[in-house]
Amino acid sequence: MPCRVEGDGTVPISAVNTLEDAGAGDISFLANPKYEKLLAETRASAVVVRDDVHLPRPMNALRTRDPYAAITILIVEIHGYRQHPRWGLDARANIAPTARLGREANVGPGACIDEDVVIGDRVTIYPGCYVARGCRLGDDVVLYPNVVLYDGTVLGDRVVIHAGTIIGEDGLGYAPVDGKWLKIPQIGRVVIADDVEIGSNCTIDRATLGQTVIGAGTKFSNLIAIGHGTKIGEDCMFVAQVGLAGSVTVGRHVTMAGQAGVVGHITIGDNVTVGAKAGVTNHVAPGLTVLGAPAVPMAQCKRQVLLVQQLPQLKRQLRKLQEEVEALRRLVGLAQDAARRSGGHGSPESP
Amino acid sequence: MPCRVEGDGTVPISAVNTLEDAGAGDISFLANPKYEKLLAETRASAVVVRDDVHLPRPMNALRTRDPYAAITILIVEIHGYRQHPRWGLDARANIAPTARLGREANVGPGACIDEDVVIGDRVTIYPGCYVARGCRLGDDVVLYPNVVLYDGTVLGDRVVIHAGTIIGEDGLGYAPVDGKWLKIPQIGRVVIADDVEIGSNCTIDRATLGQTVIGAGTKFSNLIAIGHGTKIGEDCMFVAQVGLAGSVTVGRHVTMAGQAGVVGHITIGDNVTVGAKAGVTNHVAPGLTVLGAPAVPMAQCKRQVLLVQQLPQLKRQLRKLQEEVEALRRLVGLAQDAARRSGGHGSPESP
Amino acid sequence: MPCRVEGDGTVPISAVNTLEDAGAGDISFLANPKYEKLLAETRASAVVVRDDVHLPRPMNALRTRDPYAAITILIVEIHGYRQHPRWGLDARANIAPTARLGREANVGPGACIDEDVVIGDRVTIYPGCYVARGCRLGDDVVLYPNVVLYDGTVLGDRVVIHAGTIIGEDGLGYAPVDGKWLKIPQIGRVVIADDVEIGSNCTIDRATLGQTVIGAGTKFSNLIAIGHGTKIGEDCMFVAQVGLAGSVTVGRHVTMAGQAGVVGHITIGDNVTVGAKAGVTNHVAPGLTVLGAPAVPMAQCKRQVLLVQQLPQLKRQLRKLQEEVEALRRLVGLAQDAARRSGGHGSPESP
Repeated sequence: MPCRVEGDGTVPISAVNTLEDAGAGDISFLANPKYEKLLAETRASAVVVRDDVHLPRPMNALRTRDPYAAITILIVEIHGYRQHPRWGLDARANIAPTARLGREANVGPGACIDEDVVIGDRVTIYPGCYVARGCRLGDDVVLYPNVVLYDGTVLGDRVVIHAGTIIGEDGLGYAPVDGKWLKIPQIGRVVIADDVEIGSNCTIDRATLGQTVIGAGTKFSNLIAIGHGTKIGEDCMFVAQVGLAGSVTVGRHVTMAGQAGVVGHITIGDNVTVGAKAGVTNHVAPGLTVLGAPAVPMAQCKRQVLLVQQLPQLKRQLRKLQEEVEALRRLVGLAQDAARRSGGHGSPESP
Repeated sequence: MPCRVEGDGTVPISAVNTLEDAGAGDISFLANPKYEKLLAETRASAVVVRDDVHLPRPMNALRTRDPYAAITILIVEIHGYRQHPRWGLDARANIAPTARLGREANVGPGACIDEDVVIGDRVTIYPGCYVARGCRLGDDVVLYPNVVLYDGTVLGDRVVIHAGTIIGEDGLGYAPVDGKWLKIPQIGRVVIADDVEIGSNCTIDRATLGQTVIGAGTKFSNLIAIGHGTKIGEDCMFVAQVGLAGSVTVGRHVTMAGQAGVVGHITIGDNVTVGAKAGVTNHVAPGLTVLGAPAVPMAQCKRQVLLVQQLPQLKRQLRKLQEEVEALRRLVGLAQDAARRSGGHGSPESP
Repeated sequence: MPCRVEGDGTVPISAVNTLEDAGAGDISFLANPKYEKLLAETRASAVVVRDDVHLPRPMNALRTRDPYAAITILIVEIHGYRQHPRWGLDARANIAPTARLGREANVGPGACIDEDVVIGDRVTIYPGCYVARGCRLGDDVVLYPNVVLYDGTVLGDRVVIHAGTIIGEDGLGYAPVDGKWLKIPQIGRVVIADDVEIGSNCTIDRATLGQTVIGAGTKFSNLIAIGHGTKIGEDCMFVAQVGLAGSVTVGRHVTMAGQAGVVGHITIGDNVTVGAKAGVTNHVAPGLTVLGAPAVPMAQCKRQVLLVQQLPQLKRQLRKLQEEVEALRRLVGLAQDAARRSGGHGSPESP
């Protein structure tokens, strides 16, 4: 990534920090122009900024086209990713005799791995995790504390699941029988492809039949609910508290903003963006941005919101118009009366 | 259930599967006409369909009035319900001396059962569960991994709680004192009746005083929050991410769709349906379907949504009408002028 | 607190209960006038009521200006706060050699405390909790079962975290690289000040850089999601299922009602109230109450909701007006025709 140094390129840097919290030895950055005024106040030893940003005072700066990407590289270089504790196969872990683990397994105390589980190499499973019968985990998987995988769940390579997330629980599958709910055995499973990262306290239902699928490279935040049999494409990004009902099909590279919801049995195309709190009730064509509940294309939603905010004005205009029409009618009535009085012919009432 | 066989009634069947995923030896079904085109492509050995469905090619079919109920029966017959691991009383479980367990108890490693707990027969408690002091569990209860029951929680027979759900935590009970929040001890409890099934990562507050109640046969999906002192009737169905505030009373056989919310201290009648994302702010009479936020009866909500979508059109019509009235006014003004010029009598300005 | 006794001031009281559930020996209360009719039916031995409440029959009553505060004091006096089990340092807890615990530590079986953790005096950590490397916990902290603190989390004195809550997980921090998401190491942390209580199954993201902060005395209900780098002030009250995106700044004494959501990078002033299900998309000035999605000041939102509910009427009025204008136009046209026929001069078409 091409960068240009401004000021002292030899200043020692040992950490990346925010403009607000940075001190001596820290490098910080400005990506969002909203925070430009913090540049004047920061005590960072250096800053990463765009080529065209005006520095309010002489500073040590790295200038680049994409400060966000640059700071990402710096964080990776200087700080790196989280190092996990090294338990090996902790003696207090509960591993079934028929479970098979790959090389360099790292399983914490109290973690449970049930019968017929097959696990790849270099996998880390924190304490409190439960991996039920017949699960398959790829290489380099990380399960943070208290993750639960129900029976038959499949995770690809490099899948990371944050603490408290449950995968493969039964979905809401009941048949109505005489006013009671008869449970339908949920015999499908969940399949999560390579490089997926799931946040904390999410719930992903197993399919009633077949599979619930999360595509490769997709990233979830926290408290997300995915219904049974839903299939999500690759490289999607779901923000916290999103909920998808069952049997939804989501394309590739779809963004779902916070608290958005999707009803069952619909299809969301590739590269769709669903706005925060949107309620999607119909198929969404590829590339669209939809907002609102029920969700509509962005331009339409913004117009609707604006018009709803203008409703008091609209109502006033209507009332004014009613008065004007009433006044006109009186005027016309008087004019007719006058015409009738003046001539007597051509009255509209008797044409 | 009366069924009619079409094609080869002796084809061997070993599993139930979706139309998409089925192969040789699988039976599948069509209940939702939306998926009718999949009939032509399925590789299932047989399908369950309604009497009136047209098969696109010769297939082995079971024809019945209710394919969904039929496939439920087939799943139960062929696959059955989940079999739990058999731990008996695992030596690594932590069971207080004063806890009493019924026959055939099945308690996994690391599960904790505190003082004065009483548990029925044939109960399964997975690893990571915590059953606090004084809880009462009926027969055939299942607690999946990492379920937490706070002190004094009561579960009826055949209650099933999925992984990560918390029952009986303190509700948001604080008294304001000089701008600070003084905690009110939450001394009530949660009582869950027979045959309730609760999904994963739900939270059900204990009552401040008295009881929070979930009625017999009610089913919850995941990530549902129930406030303190709320009482829910029998045979309800709550979809994921529903939230009820405290002191709500919900009748029997109420359906709450995904992400719906209910404010505190109101009553929802029997057989009510609350739509997805609805925000219920007032009592709802029995049998109603309500939608929207604030929630209103369905027909009214649909009309509102339609009218909001028509607002641009409404605004255009209003503007056009304003122009027409303006034109009319000019016309009338000219007519008056003409009349005045032609006669001079009967002018509206001087009646 | 000044109180006045009515009836028998010597009746023995052993518990506080609701008007509905109370029996002999119980004291109950009426704070919400909604429940006044229950006074006639209660079997409580005494009731706490406001000075001006009319008792439907002779009852033993404590009259006071603030029955809610009075009953809080009575609950504390008679029932007190929850007593935790006494594990001491349970032999089955997993405590790293470099972890330092204060006096009277109370750590349950299976709890894990990792390297370099520092914990204050009289702390209770229930089974299934995981306290990762480098966390700092103040005095009198309580972690209910299955709470997870990621590395570096800081909790002040008297912080209480309910079961299943996760603090310090990675936020949704990825940089887009060629259509894929590159994970940005999340190297910040979460800092929770004194006297905070957090409900069950919440998720509080660590900051990407710097800190996510929850201010002293703030109380959360359940299933709340807080994004990375968000800073919340003192003495706030958040109801269940609230979601805040990242880099939000929230002032002091802010109330967020159930299922409310806030987009990233905005500021919410002191003493703001955000209504249930509101979607806040812009800065909110101190003291405001906002409702709706997008959220607007309460009076504006209520007017909008009312006007949307009046839309059918508005549409009818518009249609009626269109008809009236059409009728007027015909009338004017006829009048003109008549004028033209009667005189031929002064036609508006040829002025």
